[in-house]
Amino acid sequence: MGKGVLGVDLHLDVAGTGARARTIESALREAVSSGRLPAGTRLPGTRSLADDLGIARGTVVEAYAQLVAEGWLVSATGSGTRVADTSMLPVRRFETLSRPVFDLRPGRPDLGLFPRTLWAASVKRTLAAASREALDYSDPAGLKVLRDAVATYLSRARGVRADPAAVVVTSGFTHGLALLSRALHGLGVRTIATEDPGLVHHRTVIRAAGLSTVPLSVDSHGADVPDGAGASLLTPAHQHPRGVVLSPARRTAFIDWAREHDGIVIEDDYDGEFRYDEQPVGALQAAAPEHVVFAGSTSKTLAPGLRLGWLVVPERLRIPVLDAVAATGATVGTPAQLAIADLLERGDYDRHVRRARQAYRRRRAELADRLATVTDVPLDGVPAGLHALLPLASRQEEKRVIDAGLAAGLQLQGINAAGYWHSPDRPEAGLIIGYATPPQHAWRPALDALAELLGDAAIKAW
Amino acid sequence: MGKGVLGVDLHLDVAGTGARARTIESALREAVSSGRLPAGTRLPGTRSLADDLGIARGTVVEAYAQLVAEGWLVSATGSGTRVADTSMLPVRRFETLSRPVFDLRPGRPDLGLFPRTLWAASVKRTLAAASREALDYSDPAGLKVLRDAVATYLSRARGVRADPAAVVVTSGFTHGLALLSRALHGLGVRTIATEDPGLVHHRTVIRAAGLSTVPLSVDSHGADVPDGAGASLLTPAHQHPRGVVLSPARRTAFIDWAREHDGIVIEDDYDGEFRYDEQPVGALQAAAPEHVVFAGSTSKTLAPGLRLGWLVVPERLRIPVLDAVAATGATVGTPAQLAIADLLERGDYDRHVRRARQAYRRRRAELADRLATVTDVPLDGVPAGLHALLPLASRQEEKRVIDAGLAAGLQLQGINAAGYWHSPDRPEAGLIIGYATPPQHAWRPALDALAELLGDAAIKAW
Repeated sequence: MGKGVLGVDLHLDVAGTGARARTIESALREAVSSGRLPAGTRLPGTRSLADDLGIARGTVVEAYAQLVAEGWLVSATGSGTRVADTSMLPVRRFETLSRPVFDLRPGRPDLGLFPRTLWAASVKRTLAAASREALDYSDPAGLKVLRDAVATYLSRARGVRADPAAVVVTSGFTHGLALLSRALHGLGVRTIATEDPGLVHHRTVIRAAGLSTVPLSVDSHGADVPDGAGASLLTPAHQHPRGVVLSPARRTAFIDWAREHDGIVIEDDYDGEFRYDEQPVGALQAAAPEHVVFAGSTSKTLAPGLRLGWLVVPERLRIPVLDAVAATGATVGTPAQLAIADLLERGDYDRHVRRARQAYRRRRAELADRLATVTDVPLDGVPAGLHALLPLASRQEEKRVIDAGLAAGLQLQGINAAGYWHSPDRPEAGLIIGYATPPQHAWRPALDALAELLGDAAIKAW
Repeated sequence: MGKGVLGVDLHLDVAGTGARARTIESALREAVSSGRLPAGTRLPGTRSLADDLGIARGTVVEAYAQLVAEGWLVSATGSGTRVADTSMLPVRRFETLSRPVFDLRPGRPDLGLFPRTLWAASVKRTLAAASREALDYSDPAGLKVLRDAVATYLSRARGVRADPAAVVVTSGFTHGLALLSRALHGLGVRTIATEDPGLVHHRTVIRAAGLSTVPLSVDSHGADVPDGAGASLLTPAHQHPRGVVLSPARRTAFIDWAREHDGIVIEDDYDGEFRYDEQPVGALQAAAPEHVVFAGSTSKTLAPGLRLGWLVVPERLRIPVLDAVAATGATVGTPAQLAIADLLERGDYDRHVRRARQAYRRRRAELADRLATVTDVPLDGVPAGLHALLPLASRQEEKRVIDAGLAAGLQLQGINAAGYWHSPDRPEAGLIIGYATPPQHAWRPALDALAELLGDAAIKAW
């Protein structure tokens, strides 16, 4: 990649070193995410790029380091800095790719199940009955009717100890995490411990609020408690991506940690409604509501496009979180709040979740059965949620399988390629198979294609 | 107010001086906004409160100063710090007051005009036709179909030079301002000049992003250009709250300022669709799209409860603003984006704006006619928007009129009481009359009550 390619994107008319690092960083991120710099492209050395642009080398080093941390670039001793395979990062989803035939990446429900008619009918019914005030500027915590409905639902379905006054309506989990990061920063917290492996996207959001992250190692009992840190971000019901459940001993250990250190646990219950072998484990929040933030959303139960979720926050975090809402100015529109409140109250939401659960339970069983024909290695974790981890023998094998999948029209996500590990030198590799993603008509053919692809793969338990 | 009252709200288990100032500040803000500390309540001296709480006096001073700046408290030499009359601050709207009979505060359209049936029908039609992808995680800048519709509309209706690629969908103006503040901060901007008088809420949002604000004095030609500052926030079409239009000479001066200083103008076109005497003046943005951010919303044209707006950003701000979206995690849900795109495309939005414009033009004329029966002093500014400024002789008179209004069941907003001035010692006073706020059936009685109230008021041009 020559100077010319970069020159198009870099707006170096902006003064200040900090600003320059950020501008180079943004330009590179854009170039990678748009696909203009394809995976594997070798970037110029930091000294050479700094010379080309007439800026300090440190500025370029800083930008590269940030982008490596975010998973856009990979850096290896001796071979310089290259563009990572980012096909699996969230941003990649926002573009129109020449799509492979089958998409088995995790993070999405079957969008074909979204109850379009039910949603539209609810918008119509609730808008017709809404007060004038509901259309006005409204409570930044969310409409009372929705906070009531969420508290009732979470208490019933997830065992959350939820007072409507503790509920804050969000535009999805990422929004909630950004609000919490800002609020915790304001309260003096400087570090949030996050699961390793865990979503790189969450670490990026936390860092954008001025905090740092430290890794929480994950084994078959779930995440282990941190040494320090003021807060921990966990997926207790179904660790993402490993699929294990936080063990009773670890639940107790985290509660003890929170009480001893006056710490906060953020419980990301992203797919807590979906457990297939037994009743889902109840929310960790119930054991210590004064130390645990419960976070849920409709992204997996209905559709990510709704941008609708909720937090249940401890009393001492309520005002700081509402301050963060005020400072960032984003709240969810009235029509969506009224509609989801109505679906929760009428039981339509529960009925939809139950239908979706049946569908995903079937798919998970079919996936496990089919993989049993190619390997003795079982899927990691419990039968739950919308994805399963299949361990592979090496990073090289992971890359080979993903590339072979793409060639065969199958879009797959690798645990390394998608930046799940905090440190880039972990030996463990694997596929995170999103079995909910394909539309119903594509599920069987996708499964066939996957089984064929994995026929000669080096599958090996960690 | 004793130690006990405060003790309920202060969570002083949090370490760190910065955190403590913030916690005291939050607790006080909550106490004032909830009405538990009524207007006029005298707060303990900073030394005495610091002693009571066992913290540094500077911490208390800092918290008081911030709340004075935000308009929650007022500080007068000799009489200490008191709770301000905050009945007009935005937060106050979020509560259920024992409402006066008539509300003439500004900032809202007649919510009775909101086209509920049209909106619900559009949600139904567009959801039925939507692609699977529309329900997935989508472009953080907004759905392509909406960015196209907004660009076409703004170009036609407001003369904006809008490329769909430059449009960013927001959850309303405040959200847009928070994103811009964060983006500008990242580019090295440290100060945004804002109009004086202007909304205190905007200054709070800018400061929450780590920037400072400086005042831009406003005369009958609109705001004057700043000495320094990296960005200016303006209401060129209809200055809020004075109602004047930015003169051609000032428009040129701001563009020159932006070009010379490589500055950014944020054009808050909050009510640009509503001009009653002639065609509305076109967007300032058209004169220098590389230096002006155009910001619009549906809060005045449809309803604030929709939480739906848009920015048109210069090329060099696009990635920093999208980085800010990613960092704060809030985007607008698909159903609302599809619905508003549909209403814009079908011309339904234009038809609704035209109907609303007729209604508000009538009200503005009736207000002017009625006030002419009690005073020779005309309403300030041009006939436009949803509010008009009536100048009063003094701050004391402003307070007297507002209190007398409340006693008579009339809710009014004062320019001083609501914190519009940057500095608390300005002599100018007045009412900002929101004539769009009352429902249709209440308009005439509200006007009667206002005329009676103002019969003996000291009305005097500035």
